[in-house]
Amino acid sequence: MKKLSAIGEFGLIGLLRKQFSGSRRRGRPEVIKGIGDDTAVLPFHKDKYLLFTTDMIVEGVHFTKKSPPEAIGRKAMACNLSDIAAMGGVPTYAVVSLGTPARVKVKFIQEIYAGMEHLGKKYRVTIVGGDTVRSDKLIINIALLGEVKRKALTTRAGAKRGDWIFVTGPLGNSLKSGRHLSFTPRLKEAQYLVQNFKPTAMLDISDGLAADVGHILEESRVGAVLYEPKIPCHRGAALNNALYDGEDFELLFTVPPASGKKLLADKRFYFIGEIVDRKNGLTLVDRRWKSRRLPFKGFTHF
Amino acid sequence: MKKLSAIGEFGLIGLLRKQFSGSRRRGRPEVIKGIGDDTAVLPFHKDKYLLFTTDMIVEGVHFTKKSPPEAIGRKAMACNLSDIAAMGGVPTYAVVSLGTPARVKVKFIQEIYAGMEHLGKKYRVTIVGGDTVRSDKLIINIALLGEVKRKALTTRAGAKRGDWIFVTGPLGNSLKSGRHLSFTPRLKEAQYLVQNFKPTAMLDISDGLAADVGHILEESRVGAVLYEPKIPCHRGAALNNALYDGEDFELLFTVPPASGKKLLADKRFYFIGEIVDRKNGLTLVDRRWKSRRLPFKGFTHF
Repeated sequence: MKKLSAIGEFGLIGLLRKQFSGSRRRGRPEVIKGIGDDTAVLPFHKDKYLLFTTDMIVEGVHFTKKSPPEAIGRKAMACNLSDIAAMGGVPTYAVVSLGTPARVKVKFIQEIYAGMEHLGKKYRVTIVGGDTVRSDKLIINIALLGEVKRKALTTRAGAKRGDWIFVTGPLGNSLKSGRHLSFTPRLKEAQYLVQNFKPTAMLDISDGLAADVGHILEESRVGAVLYEPKIPCHRGAALNNALYDGEDFELLFTVPPASGKKLLADKRFYFIGEIVDRKNGLTLVDRRWKSRRLPFKGFTHF
Repeated sequence: MKKLSAIGEFGLIGLLRKQFSGSRRRGRPEVIKGIGDDTAVLPFHKDKYLLFTTDMIVEGVHFTKKSPPEAIGRKAMACNLSDIAAMGGVPTYAVVSLGTPARVKVKFIQEIYAGMEHLGKKYRVTIVGGDTVRSDKLIINIALLGEVKRKALTTRAGAKRGDWIFVTGPLGNSLKSGRHLSFTPRLKEAQYLVQNFKPTAMLDISDGLAADVGHILEESRVGAVLYEPKIPCHRGAALNNALYDGEDFELLFTVPPASGKKLLADKRFYFIGEIVDRKNGLTLVDRRWKSRRLPFKGFTHF
């Protein structure tokens, strides 16, 4: 019998998706998007969808004992905000579950919540409930709701041959540099994009560029060429860090070439490649115009 | 500096509620109910509210390594369903976060999800997304949405002097007997009550009867008398188990006397006491009509 470590996070998600696809059809066929995107997309109003997402962070994996409590709370909120951004949406309400040892100081816990609340407030997110339980290690789970105008909804499926590929910032080395605790979720950039350029596909880079481009390619049934010299790397990050490190939380999106040309002049966005036919898979072209195929692999939690 | 163990779960919730009440007023004044009830109550449609709740269960606290995986998944879903029931609502969509060691067998994880899905399906709940992370111990967090007709909404605030108090089943000994893994969330009973009797207050008993009656008394600003011989105890449970054990997940509700009289004939509901003036606090009357005050204490996770 296989262990999780043998199939990895993406293997597990694939299995669960299969397990649940039947129940979705039988249960609530009105679900717009279920498992397999940054957030679920649910019926809401005539001109709006409801977005629903959740993220869990665990001591020793996503932060350490020594991480400042405000930064821990901030990160728990920021990952969720980033998911709502990736759909073209606006966040609204959060519920927070906290698992904690009883020996922890009350002030430490209050600072975690202050970190969440401080970041949430910037985007008009209100914490409306939660749960607190005992646990050996600190665990925080946030579930976040959001709204998106039907016209603005941007999923992973929708990239077309010829579209240009962009990211919203330099990549790589997020965990090592500590940036994973202080990144800015790209809600403003996403709103700017959906209001002015209608991206064809979008997600937030949490598994590394190669894996996350892979997600768009799979859902959109297309291929991509990435131009190595164009991929923006963070200080101290090599190309492989940009391709395979996780937790960047920059947006990755595709737009038709006409929109792409306009975005080239905008310093917030970095052109990195093009969408091509599916049979080409994911191809990386280096500065000498030599090309190689990349696997869709990336940061996995198992 | 105080540790969590010194203030307990309810102390922490009180502090957090204070910490967030300001942000709610500033951020989204349209929130109907925030922290302090079984679920949050949010604006939705003209005649419906949106319900939003979350529960975390952790290995070694809410289940053990030896608990059957399907039962673990079932419990994670059932606690959340019980919260939606307590508001008079109907559950709709869930997102699931799973923290797990990589050495766990894939089949074990699939059985956990099968347990959730099996119970969810009975009530038309669809799992629409989630998160999977590495963790030393098994952790499951479910966040659940629901809907409630505005007229059917039943909170903890609303019990009136003279109202009768009922529970939906025998109490006590839930953890020891293993019932905490197999209880039926009282969605049907709740729907029957809100459609036919309009309870004035309702919650699900997760902290023990005394603490949970206490929650209604605090939110409704009233007192209560409980009749000891009327309190239904599970086989093997003494009065103190019914009063102070946690995880019963029966509904506790109050109705005006006229409705109460009709409910006496219904075997699904157990009359246990009456709402009185606030200054009487929580009073227990024994079979010799001797009365004593009870503290609002109960099962706490710290």
